[in-house]
Amino acid sequence: MSVLDVLKTVKKDMLMGETITPFEELMSNYETSMKHRMELTVGYFQGKICKKMEEFENQKKFLVDRWLRKEGGGGITCIMQDGDVFEKAGINISVVYGVLPPEAVKQMKSRGKDLSDDSVNFFATGVSSVIHPVNPHIPTVHFNYRYFETVSSSGKELAWFGGGQDLTPNYLVEEDTIHFHKVLKEACDKHHSEHYPKFKKWCDDYFWNKFRDERRGVGGIFFDDLDEPDLESCYNFLFSCCDAVIPSYVPIVEKHLKDEYTDNEKRWQQIRRGRYVEYNLVYDRGTKFGLFTPGARIESILMSLPLIARWEYMHVPEEGTKEHELQQVLKNPRDWV
Amino acid sequence: MSVLDVLKTVKKDMLMGETITPFEELMSNYETSMKHRMELTVGYFQGKICKKMEEFENQKKFLVDRWLRKEGGGGITCIMQDGDVFEKAGINISVVYGVLPPEAVKQMKSRGKDLSDDSVNFFATGVSSVIHPVNPHIPTVHFNYRYFETVSSSGKELAWFGGGQDLTPNYLVEEDTIHFHKVLKEACDKHHSEHYPKFKKWCDDYFWNKFRDERRGVGGIFFDDLDEPDLESCYNFLFSCCDAVIPSYVPIVEKHLKDEYTDNEKRWQQIRRGRYVEYNLVYDRGTKFGLFTPGARIESILMSLPLIARWEYMHVPEEGTKEHELQQVLKNPRDWV
Repeated sequence: MSVLDVLKTVKKDMLMGETITPFEELMSNYETSMKHRMELTVGYFQGKICKKMEEFENQKKFLVDRWLRKEGGGGITCIMQDGDVFEKAGINISVVYGVLPPEAVKQMKSRGKDLSDDSVNFFATGVSSVIHPVNPHIPTVHFNYRYFETVSSSGKELAWFGGGQDLTPNYLVEEDTIHFHKVLKEACDKHHSEHYPKFKKWCDDYFWNKFRDERRGVGGIFFDDLDEPDLESCYNFLFSCCDAVIPSYVPIVEKHLKDEYTDNEKRWQQIRRGRYVEYNLVYDRGTKFGLFTPGARIESILMSLPLIARWEYMHVPEEGTKEHELQQVLKNPRDWV
Repeated sequence: MSVLDVLKTVKKDMLMGETITPFEELMSNYETSMKHRMELTVGYFQGKICKKMEEFENQKKFLVDRWLRKEGGGGITCIMQDGDVFEKAGINISVVYGVLPPEAVKQMKSRGKDLSDDSVNFFATGVSSVIHPVNPHIPTVHFNYRYFETVSSSGKELAWFGGGQDLTPNYLVEEDTIHFHKVLKEACDKHHSEHYPKFKKWCDDYFWNKFRDERRGVGGIFFDDLDEPDLESCYNFLFSCCDAVIPSYVPIVEKHLKDEYTDNEKRWQQIRRGRYVEYNLVYDRGTKFGLFTPGARIESILMSLPLIARWEYMHVPEEGTKEHELQQVLKNPRDWV
């Protein structure tokens, strides 16, 4: 089934909430308008992934928070907290547009985007998620796929895709890491043989806590400014990535669902979550970009933060422990496939 | 007793560790060299405050971590974790010097400092502390007092003081807040009648979480770039501030030492600590400046973070609750004295 055929099957009840652009408009235009196609796509995957995650829970369902932004657009934030399996899981979609102020333009220009020096008109839609499980033997996963259009004051138009997904375990399980990377590589390889190696390295470089000299996790893929060879091909690649979220992660959750854990392992998980917070608040460009966008919805942006995080002074795992093993791989990323 | 007479009484065993500059050198030069005087002063107050805090604990003592920095200087980090009264308390002094790279210069220039565009030679010494108690009815306190000298490439010399202290309660207790501000006002008023009103407002403005539109706490004082009318007077003011730490805070700790608390109050404390983390990692210039200084000792900088922090999606306290009352005062700072 082609990607557009998949979109044709989308029904309202497959989505988590009323679309921001009227559903009928999306269904009529997705073949010709990339904006509409992406909005429909992120809604479709939000529904699919939320429903899959809910299968793990006995009682909890995602709380659905639909919000509108006075500057233009809105989003649907789905969040689950204190579940049996998921301590905090958020899957957010947004469709926002309007004028980007100079601070936000600066965040983009720092990546080498050729934008004007002052405000630009923009449209952005994407899906963004972080899932923090209860059990310290189940890794945290993050994914984010997005589409951008800008028109600068001189009339110059740009459009591009960005995104990625990455795994943050508290304990290294090599076969899980290999599985995760393998599914991502397969998704990439369908589109370009250079995608996986390039985006895998980009991910390792991006999620780097410079002051600790460690990565946030065991990586995955990360890319930005994707517009070659054409938007159509880029979109197809993005769709494959979104489609890889469930097969890359869910088998790992299932495998460790019943793993027993100790108080010390839980404490280590909370220390690792402290590092996750550190990374997201100090370094992450996505978080910064979000905060500098006018009408920023801070609760949706900071949905990525764990329920509980811990900072112990000079916590250094002893050599020979599983905690130390993880730290080593965070300092020295490996090739997994 | 004059300030210099107080310094004359300093003995090695009143300090938490071996001074970075040899103790004898400090004792010979503090009358004429401001660098030496400040290094001795921050060591003296670190010892005095640590010992005072230890009186609250049955068994715990501060862990003393003396560190040297290969680029020049070092510090003494004193930390207590998991105490009966203090969940995490850090009191850090440092004496660092060398060359400030452009990124760090930029952090200073953004405050209006007239520095050159590239690197500058600098000397900095200060004491910095955050104390997070176990009991949610005892507020967190922060203080930081520092002295800076820079010499730009053109040979221009600058020297100034900065600092402040502020209170972050989880529950508003008006008389505690009044007490805290009153002690600070008295310390300020001895030096200049404009200090307290100016620095109180500066504190409210500085500790502002823009995206939440709330202050970190109920304020205190904050100032920077202080060099008028002369360094001698500024130093005397700083000494009075340091001397106000114990009388402003300790009576509040004593008062609430035996307060009972519920799980819900503890949870609210952790949510407020999440906001503390947010503020320090996203906004705080001191944290950013620290991170951008070469040879940054991340563990000493992030010592300010609580042991445990919590992020719940859209946690909004109900009207009429004590939690809501606190939030209101964070949104609308009041005059306390």
